[in-house]
Amino acid sequence: MKKNIQASIIIIGNEILSGRTQDTNTSSLSLWLNSIGVKVSEVRVIPDVEKIIVETVNILRKKYHYVFTTGGIGPTHDDITAASISKAFQKKYEIHKEAFRILQNYYKPGEFTEGRQKMTWMPENAELILNPTSGAPGFSIENVFCLPGVPSILKSMLGGLKNRITGGEPILSHTISLKTVESEIANSLTKVQNDNLDIEIGSYPFFHAGKLGVSIVIRSENQLKIDNCLSQILDFINEKKIEIVER
Amino acid sequence: MKKNIQASIIIIGNEILSGRTQDTNTSSLSLWLNSIGVKVSEVRVIPDVEKIIVETVNILRKKYHYVFTTGGIGPTHDDITAASISKAFQKKYEIHKEAFRILQNYYKPGEFTEGRQKMTWMPENAELILNPTSGAPGFSIENVFCLPGVPSILKSMLGGLKNRITGGEPILSHTISLKTVESEIANSLTKVQNDNLDIEIGSYPFFHAGKLGVSIVIRSENQLKIDNCLSQILDFINEKKIEIVER
Repeated sequence: MKKNIQASIIIIGNEILSGRTQDTNTSSLSLWLNSIGVKVSEVRVIPDVEKIIVETVNILRKKYHYVFTTGGIGPTHDDITAASISKAFQKKYEIHKEAFRILQNYYKPGEFTEGRQKMTWMPENAELILNPTSGAPGFSIENVFCLPGVPSILKSMLGGLKNRITGGEPILSHTISLKTVESEIANSLTKVQNDNLDIEIGSYPFFHAGKLGVSIVIRSENQLKIDNCLSQILDFINEKKIEIVER
Repeated sequence: MKKNIQASIIIIGNEILSGRTQDTNTSSLSLWLNSIGVKVSEVRVIPDVEKIIVETVNILRKKYHYVFTTGGIGPTHDDITAASISKAFQKKYEIHKEAFRILQNYYKPGEFTEGRQKMTWMPENAELILNPTSGAPGFSIENVFCLPGVPSILKSMLGGLKNRITGGEPILSHTISLKTVESEIANSLTKVQNDNLDIEIGSYPFFHAGKLGVSIVIRSENQLKIDNCLSQILDFINEKKIEIVER
């Protein structure tokens, strides 16, 4: 049986901390990582401050199999991720020759300006993560993968990463949505959880479009265990005559 | 002059880490905190695991003026925030009499079930945070404020918190959106940043609705400094003949 592979995500950017920008990269990355058998165990959102980036990367890269950073790899003064990662690994911060060649070809002659050249500076021996959307690559060094902050660009780069990450069993989940309130099912659900200690059962109230309900999410690497747990949940739902909204 | 008041947010919930649910509480809380002069310096998303909640709360409550947690205060088995916070503060975990009275009045006779009573268990001497939406209160203990995970309920509870948090000067910001790419303005913007080291200048590319551009965000407690910085930015924008999309 494969191991439980865990990752953390570091969202780098003052714009997320100020509330100005809604982060969506956590959700995109987590869903994609789950699909290849990697579980996200922790996310940290931190400011564009070198000392904090260095410290956070050095804590998390020792704690988890993989670390993903988003943001701070563009051409402007507040893009300090590559320089900070170099410091974290005590590597030289230098022009990556292949990245330089890629961007030289990407831009029209004369347009590969000094600002754009900044995007080719990376830690020594970084491996590129190709960018099919806008040219400028991300990079990885050891178990740390640095991706851009713009959600559409980040998503377009994940496909190219797949072969560089070794996941465990994909984490499967089943959701069943009920027309009820949490307190109505809390005791029964606790019993099911106690009977299935190796399964993650979550209960999430929802209020939207005038509907009020609860989604129960069952997560495990083992489909049989999910099915067994689901049938125990369906038993008490039938007994209590609770309406199923979606399953 | 008032101090720089800093906070951190702890988002508690497997559903955010799995990517199933998109967190929006970070953005709501950050915007609200900014408006009352509190700057969010760090956000952590952690699972529903007691040991991790206890550790995270104990690290962050010593590091920042305020800590806000979201999630895990409902009636189901996976709602372990109140018990965990009690452990973090080494306080008894017990029924809060006022919370009990509130919920006893909130529910119809006979409907204040054992599941619902769980929501009145809190750390000893917790102060309630009233919930105008769905009855069950949040709570605070020392500098830690525990709010629910459902975004609409969380938002409805912030108004009642205002007098319990002492902010510094509100953080002001000005955004100017340009029809350009980051590399076009990177050098000029670096010069402005170097001339205004106490101002936070962020540069954020956007790609939406067929438009491509860059938003520059200037943030400070001092409106005069923002205005001065903005005029320096407008100078190079005019010089470069860059179109302003919005300001």
